[in-house]
Amino acid sequence: MAPVGAGLWRTLRAHQVYGANTDVGKTIVSTVLCNAVQRQKQRAAFLKPVSTGSLDEADDRHLKRYGAGTVTKCLYQFDEPVSPHIAARQKTIPRDDDLLASIHKTLSDWARTDIDFALVETAGGVHSPGPNGNSQADLYRPLRLPIVLVADSRLGGISSSISAYESLVLRGYDIQSVLLFRDDYYQNHEYLGNFFRNKSIPLVPLPAPPARPSQTDASSLARDEEAMSSYYQKVSQESDIMRLLEEMNIKNTERIERLEEMASRAQDVIWYPFTQHYGMRPKDITVIDSAHDDFFQTFGTNRSEKPESELRPTFDGSASWWTQGLGHGNPELSLSAAYAAGRYGHVMFAGAVHEPALALADNLLKTLDNPRFAKVFYTDNGSTGMEVAVKMGLRVACDRYGWDATKEQIGILGLKGSYHGDTIGVMDCSEPSVYNKKVEWYRGRGHWFDFPIVKMVDGQWKVEVPAEMKAELGSDAEFDSLGSVFDLNTRLSSETSQRYKDYIRNTIEDLVKRHGMKFGALILEPVILGAGGMLFCDPLFQRCLTDVVRDHPELFSPNAPSPKGSASWSGLPVIFDEVFTGLYRLGRPTSASFLGVHPDIAVNAKLLTGGLIPLCTTVASQEIFDTFSSPEKSDALLHGHSYTAHAVGCTVAVDSLKAMADMDSNGAWEKFKTDWSPKATATANASVPDVWSVWSQSLLQDLSCAESVESVFAIGTVLSISLRDAQGGGYTSNAAKGLQQQLAIGSDQFNVHSRVLGNVLYLMSSVTSKPGSLQELENLLRSSLV
Amino acid sequence: MAPVGAGLWRTLRAHQVYGANTDVGKTIVSTVLCNAVQRQKQRAAFLKPVSTGSLDEADDRHLKRYGAGTVTKCLYQFDEPVSPHIAARQKTIPRDDDLLASIHKTLSDWARTDIDFALVETAGGVHSPGPNGNSQADLYRPLRLPIVLVADSRLGGISSSISAYESLVLRGYDIQSVLLFRDDYYQNHEYLGNFFRNKSIPLVPLPAPPARPSQTDASSLARDEEAMSSYYQKVSQESDIMRLLEEMNIKNTERIERLEEMASRAQDVIWYPFTQHYGMRPKDITVIDSAHDDFFQTFGTNRSEKPESELRPTFDGSASWWTQGLGHGNPELSLSAAYAAGRYGHVMFAGAVHEPALALADNLLKTLDNPRFAKVFYTDNGSTGMEVAVKMGLRVACDRYGWDATKEQIGILGLKGSYHGDTIGVMDCSEPSVYNKKVEWYRGRGHWFDFPIVKMVDGQWKVEVPAEMKAELGSDAEFDSLGSVFDLNTRLSSETSQRYKDYIRNTIEDLVKRHGMKFGALILEPVILGAGGMLFCDPLFQRCLTDVVRDHPELFSPNAPSPKGSASWSGLPVIFDEVFTGLYRLGRPTSASFLGVHPDIAVNAKLLTGGLIPLCTTVASQEIFDTFSSPEKSDALLHGHSYTAHAVGCTVAVDSLKAMADMDSNGAWEKFKTDWSPKATATANASVPDVWSVWSQSLLQDLSCAESVESVFAIGTVLSISLRDAQGGGYTSNAAKGLQQQLAIGSDQFNVHSRVLGNVLYLMSSVTSKPGSLQELENLLRSSLV
Repeated sequence: MAPVGAGLWRTLRAHQVYGANTDVGKTIVSTVLCNAVQRQKQRAAFLKPVSTGSLDEADDRHLKRYGAGTVTKCLYQFDEPVSPHIAARQKTIPRDDDLLASIHKTLSDWARTDIDFALVETAGGVHSPGPNGNSQADLYRPLRLPIVLVADSRLGGISSSISAYESLVLRGYDIQSVLLFRDDYYQNHEYLGNFFRNKSIPLVPLPAPPARPSQTDASSLARDEEAMSSYYQKVSQESDIMRLLEEMNIKNTERIERLEEMASRAQDVIWYPFTQHYGMRPKDITVIDSAHDDFFQTFGTNRSEKPESELRPTFDGSASWWTQGLGHGNPELSLSAAYAAGRYGHVMFAGAVHEPALALADNLLKTLDNPRFAKVFYTDNGSTGMEVAVKMGLRVACDRYGWDATKEQIGILGLKGSYHGDTIGVMDCSEPSVYNKKVEWYRGRGHWFDFPIVKMVDGQWKVEVPAEMKAELGSDAEFDSLGSVFDLNTRLSSETSQRYKDYIRNTIEDLVKRHGMKFGALILEPVILGAGGMLFCDPLFQRCLTDVVRDHPELFSPNAPSPKGSASWSGLPVIFDEVFTGLYRLGRPTSASFLGVHPDIAVNAKLLTGGLIPLCTTVASQEIFDTFSSPEKSDALLHGHSYTAHAVGCTVAVDSLKAMADMDSNGAWEKFKTDWSPKATATANASVPDVWSVWSQSLLQDLSCAESVESVFAIGTVLSISLRDAQGGGYTSNAAKGLQQQLAIGSDQFNVHSRVLGNVLYLMSSVTSKPGSLQELENLLRSSLV
Repeated sequence: MAPVGAGLWRTLRAHQVYGANTDVGKTIVSTVLCNAVQRQKQRAAFLKPVSTGSLDEADDRHLKRYGAGTVTKCLYQFDEPVSPHIAARQKTIPRDDDLLASIHKTLSDWARTDIDFALVETAGGVHSPGPNGNSQADLYRPLRLPIVLVADSRLGGISSSISAYESLVLRGYDIQSVLLFRDDYYQNHEYLGNFFRNKSIPLVPLPAPPARPSQTDASSLARDEEAMSSYYQKVSQESDIMRLLEEMNIKNTERIERLEEMASRAQDVIWYPFTQHYGMRPKDITVIDSAHDDFFQTFGTNRSEKPESELRPTFDGSASWWTQGLGHGNPELSLSAAYAAGRYGHVMFAGAVHEPALALADNLLKTLDNPRFAKVFYTDNGSTGMEVAVKMGLRVACDRYGWDATKEQIGILGLKGSYHGDTIGVMDCSEPSVYNKKVEWYRGRGHWFDFPIVKMVDGQWKVEVPAEMKAELGSDAEFDSLGSVFDLNTRLSSETSQRYKDYIRNTIEDLVKRHGMKFGALILEPVILGAGGMLFCDPLFQRCLTDVVRDHPELFSPNAPSPKGSASWSGLPVIFDEVFTGLYRLGRPTSASFLGVHPDIAVNAKLLTGGLIPLCTTVASQEIFDTFSSPEKSDALLHGHSYTAHAVGCTVAVDSLKAMADMDSNGAWEKFKTDWSPKATATANASVPDVWSVWSQSLLQDLSCAESVESVFAIGTVLSISLRDAQGGGYTSNAAKGLQQQLAIGSDQFNVHSRVLGNVLYLMSSVTSKPGSLQELENLLRSSLV
């Protein structure tokens, strides 16, 4: 099913009419507005997507009769005056997606005619269920039309109007105007007028309409019709209405003008992250009007000359820098965030505790399922969380080995191409690269191993050993499935494993004994080194590296004690940077589980909040924590940002972790798992672990055989495509630009935002991505590459 | 007016009854619940704070008649069946604070009797206005009683019930149960039952009550009374009701048990920021159940033995680590956050733009009002924002002066006691101190000037020159007001100014020429060095330091060009760290304005979001931006966190900046300004600038004369008290602990959370703190010290 674009037309001012409650006069208000438009020699149109019953005053027939020539349309008509979800039980129900598509099409068709103004009327109140039982406020959200809210003038109407307004706001709707009937006894229009004026939303009170006829004989009905006609004639000429329509007109124009200037305004005042501004033009900047599920709604990206909506769905193919999990504009997470903001705001965390911080710590320890872990330290992002991890690691190593770090340099053991963040301390944990070598204070401290790479080439999974390591590690190896690459139980007893270990051990020995280096921590991004270029490290190599470090503490210091048991660190504290790879990004709660390793310290961020706001955790063992315990205050880990463990982030994270764990246990990814299960491959093997991806095996096969493709892989939500590059690849390569541009053009359904790392283009879904969208993406990739 | 404590009693289960709309049967539901309680041989009580009119079914008289012995009370009775804010026009209106205090007192009194269960019934819907026109959902929020929500069983009731629920949730209420009448035609109970089950909130449908009598003769009324009695008799024995009451009972018990264990659970799993855990006990951890305005609601802090509420208001005297501006649990900011979450979630910022990020950049450039500033770079917290500033500063200096930073060490020029964050790169910008010297990778790089300090001693404002600088800078000076310390127009032409400049110039010359040092940036926290111990630097010294650096570029490199004009940096790029001091913390939009200096780079955070969530901006001049522009991608500022410019933070920041600017222009702080205006001092002087504080001048006078006090100062929202310490002060001093403990005990009204920095205890208000609360704090300080 195609995603629907949000609605915004130059030639058509389209609005959605929501009522604060049922029976507040939505249709009468719509009729007044349409009348007024028609009287100004413009054309109005009225769309009732779903109509239920004659008792509900909302009705396209009313518009037909009194609308002064307004074009009217109803998409689905039910007869009973009950909620559409009940009425729909007796009828063929339109799917929500189809309903949205029909509305979008109707409005787009109207935009091609001389119609200037359109109202799409909802049924009942804002949360009244649509035909499939979903709240209309959620159902219609992808269109995100500007709202005309009809407030309630009755007793209790102040409350229901404000609550309805808040329900719309927390779904990211813009309320453009409020109308209601004047009632001089309850005076709701006065109170609400002030309320909405403070929000800069115009409110117009209308005279109350004629009373409904108490009898239904012909003459009563005729009198009623006459009264209604004269009501509309009078009211639709009121200056307040004229002014309101003019304001709505201006708002539509200004909104488009603002969208048109946003890219160049942004270029004026924004200094972009990771961006070379040289030669950058406004058209290189994507203007995002809103986002929903996997899609941005982008401005100026439509290819067509026709008066389509100005907004187009753009698949968020970088998962907004690897953060997205539960969809943009997720109303559950919005409400979670709002609850925490309403209950706490942000409260001081040093020396205090609040429920969300404690609940998240508990939940996270459970999710990570690592018997070593005991303590959770909060910071704001992966970079700061890694700074904390490094401070922890260096301290415990120096403490155990009796090193004075002010007098000697203590380094990091890691992998080439690693990346742990943008603050200078964690930049120093990586070898010199394009990211850091021009940072004036950068001083790479440590040693970084090159390593064998997992990839699919020409339909074949293989582990490729770098040329200069082949003498020691052996030649490339082929695997019949990705699962068997991860079959470490089997592979650990292989000759390869022994070669890996010997190589690692010899290298460390050489560095320490011959070059006098000292190491304070082993830092790994398990499975995939993301920012380094989506480097898929042979898990056996990472496992062997960890094993060697832990089994041979004597490598690092003659004072080193022997390994003490499962909760104690040995050799070096092992830090896993799971900021990118953790929390279901690769299909599992942790990426450590792929290696069968329990790190001493782990850092999580990005998906932690489901993709809403920054938050990071550094989790450590009790032994590491205890090293900082001392009667000296200054021995403590003196780190802490002002918003440490902010309640909004912790609350959203608790709910996100729960949502993802529920999906996992409810089998939400079974379809993908089945596609990737060993049964689907030639040689099923009971010991082959569960490794799967939302990207299909057949896509990988086909892409890996494409001429322009060097290799591919997929795991969990990640798809990586290495393009052939005559110049040899790397961060400055342009090989992937062509594919990126084709995705940016996209298909009839949508286009795709993607990021490249040198000659690698990757795509990343959220954990809730719809199979239909993923299928369309696969089609796009095939048509671009195969 | 005393703040009210949130309501939570061991011996009394108190709830607030909200209706999804008016006329949904709140009183009947209350009567059913109270009946059921009474039948279980427990005692029930019913409180109607404000009752309006006999047509409104909500009525304590109904409870009296049918409540089976329920204790009833009504605090304010109005006769007209309209909203309380209209009814109240004819009567003496209770102030909101008084109303809350009366409710709290009534419930506390009941808690001392044998009453087990109490309901506090609201009037109308959740947002129906209270007597003073404020929404009840806001008005009653400080009590934050668990909610019994009466849903609406009528047509449209699904929508109004869910919206009412959302309005309560976004104010941080916990909805404990939902009840409504069964209506088999509309079946709202089925839909809502599913909806609330997904939220783990029990929903119980009740049989519809007997129809109201159509006539009012005595026999009709008698029949009605009989029907109602038998309705209550039957319904209140239903097993669903019994089960619900039992669940509510368990929830109350579990909530208290959870609060009781939270501190020790936190000690088990939390690694606290800036905290030495050695010797820490659970009782050292403050358990925060919620927060509102300036107050935490803390558990276990009540001194009294009586069955008071388990929660006590605790003034947030550190402004939650200097972040708070617009009050905890601010419903406007909650809604802003929810809107952004609903409209965008988080969307990718590299190469894209969205309205909140652009609007905040525009707004910030306007707020900072510095003609040099052109570009805004976003990060997540002050530490990361300063890392960016340092990267900017070092780059432009190396670029201009032709230094190769990989081969030589480029340092920072700053002040002793400066602090710029916890990441290692910005730690290196400060001299060795207790905060950083034990961080293994810390290497202080630069030179830090000692400086004269502003303080009030024995009622006298003075600038105190460190002993070892007296020979060069002259002796201490006295001032007749704080304003005259900031009268830089006058002071710049003084001999002191010349001495300052000579000293600074000679020192730099010595460092560069004699010691071969190179400097890449001047970094200052204008006016107050916060983390260093609330050090109030003589603004003249900071001004002279900036002037010398800019006027004498030749000090730093023989290649240095002469100053080029107002937009160009000269000598060194000047970086102002306004993370703590900016955005109204000191009473002005910028702290740079106190020095009359336009920095080249400024960093803002903390108050930027009004105190809700992490966000930081680094703002720079066009010239600095242009230095990074090059055909080489790797010359760009390759920095960027995943949640860069997250929409929730930017939206909240836009609204916070607007709210603070509005307060400024609306004269919200006039009362304080008047207290501090030069007219109030002996020698008014037209050139003395506007410097003021929320803390009174007379408090400062009195505290500064107290025996245990060494000195004090106040500016903007900050009050700093240096206690005498025989051991000489510093971060490890315990001199301020006694005062901190007295504040933690507090008064009858509330107690105070405060932080100390060595021998300094500071207090910090938000920009919206109530004069009454501040007055009570001043009383507490006087009674503790004077």
